[in-house]
Amino acid sequence: MSETTILSISALHERVEAIFRKAGLNSVQAGALARVIVAGERDACKSHGIYRIEGALRTVKAGKVKPDAVPELELQEGSAIVKVNAQGGFANPAFELGLPALAERARALGLAALVINDCTHFSALWPEVEGLTGEGLAGLVMCPSYATVAPAGGNKPLLGTNPFAFGWPREGKPPYVFDFATSVAARGEIELHRRAGKPLPEGWAIDAEGKPTTDPEAALAGAMLPFGGHKGSAIGTMIELLAGIMIGDLTSPEVLDYLGTTTLAPFHGELIVAFSPEAFAAGRPGNPFARAEVLFEAIVGQGARLPSQRRFVARARSESEGVVLTQAEIDQLDRLLALGLDAVA
Amino acid sequence: MSETTILSISALHERVEAIFRKAGLNSVQAGALARVIVAGERDACKSHGIYRIEGALRTVKAGKVKPDAVPELELQEGSAIVKVNAQGGFANPAFELGLPALAERARALGLAALVINDCTHFSALWPEVEGLTGEGLAGLVMCPSYATVAPAGGNKPLLGTNPFAFGWPREGKPPYVFDFATSVAARGEIELHRRAGKPLPEGWAIDAEGKPTTDPEAALAGAMLPFGGHKGSAIGTMIELLAGIMIGDLTSPEVLDYLGTTTLAPFHGELIVAFSPEAFAAGRPGNPFARAEVLFEAIVGQGARLPSQRRFVARARSESEGVVLTQAEIDQLDRLLALGLDAVA
Repeated sequence: MSETTILSISALHERVEAIFRKAGLNSVQAGALARVIVAGERDACKSHGIYRIEGALRTVKAGKVKPDAVPELELQEGSAIVKVNAQGGFANPAFELGLPALAERARALGLAALVINDCTHFSALWPEVEGLTGEGLAGLVMCPSYATVAPAGGNKPLLGTNPFAFGWPREGKPPYVFDFATSVAARGEIELHRRAGKPLPEGWAIDAEGKPTTDPEAALAGAMLPFGGHKGSAIGTMIELLAGIMIGDLTSPEVLDYLGTTTLAPFHGELIVAFSPEAFAAGRPGNPFARAEVLFEAIVGQGARLPSQRRFVARARSESEGVVLTQAEIDQLDRLLALGLDAVA
Repeated sequence: MSETTILSISALHERVEAIFRKAGLNSVQAGALARVIVAGERDACKSHGIYRIEGALRTVKAGKVKPDAVPELELQEGSAIVKVNAQGGFANPAFELGLPALAERARALGLAALVINDCTHFSALWPEVEGLTGEGLAGLVMCPSYATVAPAGGNKPLLGTNPFAFGWPREGKPPYVFDFATSVAARGEIELHRRAGKPLPEGWAIDAEGKPTTDPEAALAGAMLPFGGHKGSAIGTMIELLAGIMIGDLTSPEVLDYLGTTTLAPFHGELIVAFSPEAFAAGRPGNPFARAEVLFEAIVGQGARLPSQRRFVARARSESEGVVLTQAEIDQLDRLLALGLDAVA
């Protein structure tokens, strides 16, 4: 067994926030980034945990995100749309700023939307979804990415991996949450196969000529495929329309043009739609939260899993026992704290 | 070649509406039903064309839908939710009643929802989507069905085939529209394989023991599978939550309990969410409709199809040349008109 260290969630948060502060992020950026990264590590969602710190720092160093941005809330009287301009900073502090206003509007009007513009996005969408469910709201969250996915029937990268996420609040329990890429696989999974020298499963990707391939190199030079054929492709296109074009922000091909690389965090917008189950169910028979539990029990009762179930088990363990990090991970955190932006290329 | 008859769209509408009137439907129900059925036939979408008339009449005869229902609009000041109670009638006239109020709210607030409660639903969702795009709005439409689909990892029917539909308006062109079941295949496709004595493609269904099957009989006794594995399953579950539970209407298992059969049109609710692209894009660079055309051109330019493209080609032909019906179809329309509800079991 290699040596491991156990940190409390708050101790890990302090270290991660200190790294971002050292790298020049202001407190609103550093705090929000540390919250989502620690949440990923806490939930054993390693692909969105401390592994992501370096990518965020590389994006700062490349000048593609403003480390000192202060997001601005734009409230318009009598609108169901709440807008936050991230001012070129990360999406996460912009979401934190907009959430209370979004929740207030959704409760008052029944549904409302939060638009985040001009942000850099690098985290999962479930922290946003759980922000909504924490307010007793159901919600949909989506955003573009970089053009790496071919539309069904096509042969060139155009759509992003465009994540689609949803949540429903549960009383006294973790919420019902899903959050997935609308591509068959995440780009990181193809990269992992390449490093391991393993072929891809069939149906993940096409090569630069548009032919099916299981070669990771050829896939990275070609395009990923949407999940579920033409249906997933249609949902990915919908996300470009609603969470890119409609909100006046970049689409996935425009993001790639702007960045010129998929190695930095993408710059675009994000759309969050919040629903108040109380407002929708008012005057109708049955309590929506109690009825949802009947549905969840029927799913779990036949041996199926609810999405995010593993994440919530890991969370409970981290909350009681702390987060376990390897010596290599501790060394990496120490290095990032010591060197700041000098730690990344 | 068998004999065929060409009817203008309006002549076909008159015949279908007369059939529904003869069967005892009031004019608001008969008119709305005729519009969606003729739209299906016009678009060469035969599975939602005149083929559907008998099912609607069987549901009337079984007492599971009120032929004389008059839907009621419930407007609440200062809410983004517009409700229409179908009063036990079909969903289609309820949608027609609610659409102007929904469009007005969506334009004023940026987004709004139309909830249809206590309705019988038997049509595709694209007529609703095109109602929205006809108002210059983007929109999402969804509803439950009967419990015929097992959640991913499960082995018993629980979710419905739960259609998910979306539209984006285009200037001077048919809209961008998709409308699909969140199951791999529609139940009708399994029935068609059974009648033809053909095995199902792999991955469509499981038998009553939860094992994968390609036998249509075993599939009908078992469960269909969601599209895209756990991702489609999660979207199907979301539709039960938003368009069943949240709106205070039946979920797919409750629909099946209530009807006791999948041979009649299901009784439940429907959720329509409308977005005003103008309101969302206000103050941001670029015209959202022009930018969307760039995306569509990039999709079509690499040889991929836009969803509904075939339907719109058929529509243009029907509008200029009329709708072609076989002699058997003409005979069936004549028989339904002569016999009314006596024509169905």
